[in-house]
Amino acid sequence: MAGRKAQPAFHAILLAGGSGTRFWPLSRQDKPKQFLPLTGRTSLLAETWRRVRALAPPSRIWVVAPKRLEARVRAVLPQLRADNLVLEPSPRDTGPAVGLGCAAVARRDPRAIVGVFPTDHVIPDQDEFGRAVRLAVVRAGRGALVCLGIRPDRPATGFGYLKCRRRPRKGEAVAVERFVEKPDVRRARQFLKAGNYLWNGGMFVWGVERFLRELGETEPPILDAVEAYLAGRARAWSRATKLSVDYAVMERASGVEVVPLDAGWNDVGSWDAAARLRELDPPSGLAQQSILIDSPGSAIFADARTVALVDVPGVVVVDTDDALLVVSRDQTEKVREVVEELRRRKRKDLL
Amino acid sequence: MAGRKAQPAFHAILLAGGSGTRFWPLSRQDKPKQFLPLTGRTSLLAETWRRVRALAPPSRIWVVAPKRLEARVRAVLPQLRADNLVLEPSPRDTGPAVGLGCAAVARRDPRAIVGVFPTDHVIPDQDEFGRAVRLAVVRAGRGALVCLGIRPDRPATGFGYLKCRRRPRKGEAVAVERFVEKPDVRRARQFLKAGNYLWNGGMFVWGVERFLRELGETEPPILDAVEAYLAGRARAWSRATKLSVDYAVMERASGVEVVPLDAGWNDVGSWDAAARLRELDPPSGLAQQSILIDSPGSAIFADARTVALVDVPGVVVVDTDDALLVVSRDQTEKVREVVEELRRRKRKDLL
Repeated sequence: MAGRKAQPAFHAILLAGGSGTRFWPLSRQDKPKQFLPLTGRTSLLAETWRRVRALAPPSRIWVVAPKRLEARVRAVLPQLRADNLVLEPSPRDTGPAVGLGCAAVARRDPRAIVGVFPTDHVIPDQDEFGRAVRLAVVRAGRGALVCLGIRPDRPATGFGYLKCRRRPRKGEAVAVERFVEKPDVRRARQFLKAGNYLWNGGMFVWGVERFLRELGETEPPILDAVEAYLAGRARAWSRATKLSVDYAVMERASGVEVVPLDAGWNDVGSWDAAARLRELDPPSGLAQQSILIDSPGSAIFADARTVALVDVPGVVVVDTDDALLVVSRDQTEKVREVVEELRRRKRKDLL
Repeated sequence: MAGRKAQPAFHAILLAGGSGTRFWPLSRQDKPKQFLPLTGRTSLLAETWRRVRALAPPSRIWVVAPKRLEARVRAVLPQLRADNLVLEPSPRDTGPAVGLGCAAVARRDPRAIVGVFPTDHVIPDQDEFGRAVRLAVVRAGRGALVCLGIRPDRPATGFGYLKCRRRPRKGEAVAVERFVEKPDVRRARQFLKAGNYLWNGGMFVWGVERFLRELGETEPPILDAVEAYLAGRARAWSRATKLSVDYAVMERASGVEVVPLDAGWNDVGSWDAAARLRELDPPSGLAQQSILIDSPGSAIFADARTVALVDVPGVVVVDTDDALLVVSRDQTEKVREVVEELRRRKRKDLL
């Protein structure tokens, strides 16, 4: 290692896409989840910025977002450098988005180590997050493709799992043996018991050159589309394969490692999850307007109006200017069906 | 009966008071239930007017209402003659209200037969209503104090009952033996089985002179207060006993008869009752904006906004500009507790 050059610089890429379906009616097509203040304070996107800001200066924080969200991203992140905002003409899943972000970073700094972060998660423990990313950066500097793996606290069936060579201790990186698709509850229980399975939270750290080389081998149409698009051929974008970065690269690559993240991660995947967050950390003003009578386990997301629940336990109420949702906390994934019905009714005003 | 004078004229007195508690948030203190279009068409007050209009000309239809509702009554009933609107300075239950209405009618027409009608009930069969009132008018012309009794179709515990000498057939009047307070469900079942118990729907027909004479005997403070008030001594009103007309007169009088009313009467006593009405006779436009997924038995009262229910069966949702209610249909009487809580919080804007 003697005579090596200066440490490569760390860049953060924030992924700011999303459909805005699961958090209807608060989220809409042009206001997906990362723009919502689901923890009762600022938007999840602004919180993500603050989180990575502790690890990189604004000159090295990038955002990849669909073109339709450009104005909203700029409004939420006034500190974002204009040429660090990379716009997708249309959403094509995370494979092309991550490819585009990495190619853009590589044009400025080919030796960069990048961290890729979704912007719609909650991570309460900032210090632990910082420590995990720094370790991942070290491993990526030695050539690894690194996942941040979340240690499961329940047999969740809504996430993919990373099967590790062994149970990783806090502060160490371990080789990933295999990516495991969302399991049924029986297998999820086995994973939890075994201890060497972590949740795949969609957070990655790697050298951009290494990643782009892998992408060129595993999914050339994405790399070609990305390069052509950055070279000014906008129509090339539509030729990028619609594929997650997991499928496009990570599941097929070798030398993948995981760094465990024990920072209270929550993907806030549903209104039920949002309600749970709020129970842990109740907002001061909002809920005081509400009146709950004999309605344990119910949660209210409302701004302007007074909401009264009487003998309606275990629901989430979401109140907006033009639409109102009441959903059982057991069935929040069915909010999708409401959005589908609105599409059938051509209620573009509510989508 | 030879040599008798012309038939006495029939006047209708509509009682338009009420607190607006049970139908919060659609009803408020200054907009009680009778002003709501609970059947999806016009207000219950306007429907009551239409019902009695088939029996009397506008010159003989009177409204007794609290002073605070004056403008609203005039707006709903432009046909109401100015001097047929009798205003109570403050609400003091139905005894003083009925006394005031009858005294006002007696000043214009001492021989009048009056029918007293709440304005917040639904009576679908207008013809049958007309027939029952006409029979009651005949009996009242012969000196009886007549109640319209509703034939029970279930062992309701929310109404008082009239115990009749025998089970009255349609189209006949029968003597009332006794007024019975709201029973428990066991007794209500016995009443239903016995057949000679009718619900007391608060509708009465009598000669004004007879009634005022009874009132003067049974509850002189009310008659004195009413006469003084009509003579211009406004402050006398507060000396009228706060008492229902049932307590003040009917339960203590002799010669009380009942005419059965088989006209589909519904007192719409709760949001649950309103939801049942709506199920029988769904409105065309309103509910089409709503989306119900796996929510059988739920009903939505909303004007402007789209309401989506997901997996929330058996509730009523009431959506207004400034407040929203979700209440289990089994517990709609607890809406009262919401209003009490708003009073404690001094939320006058919502009362």
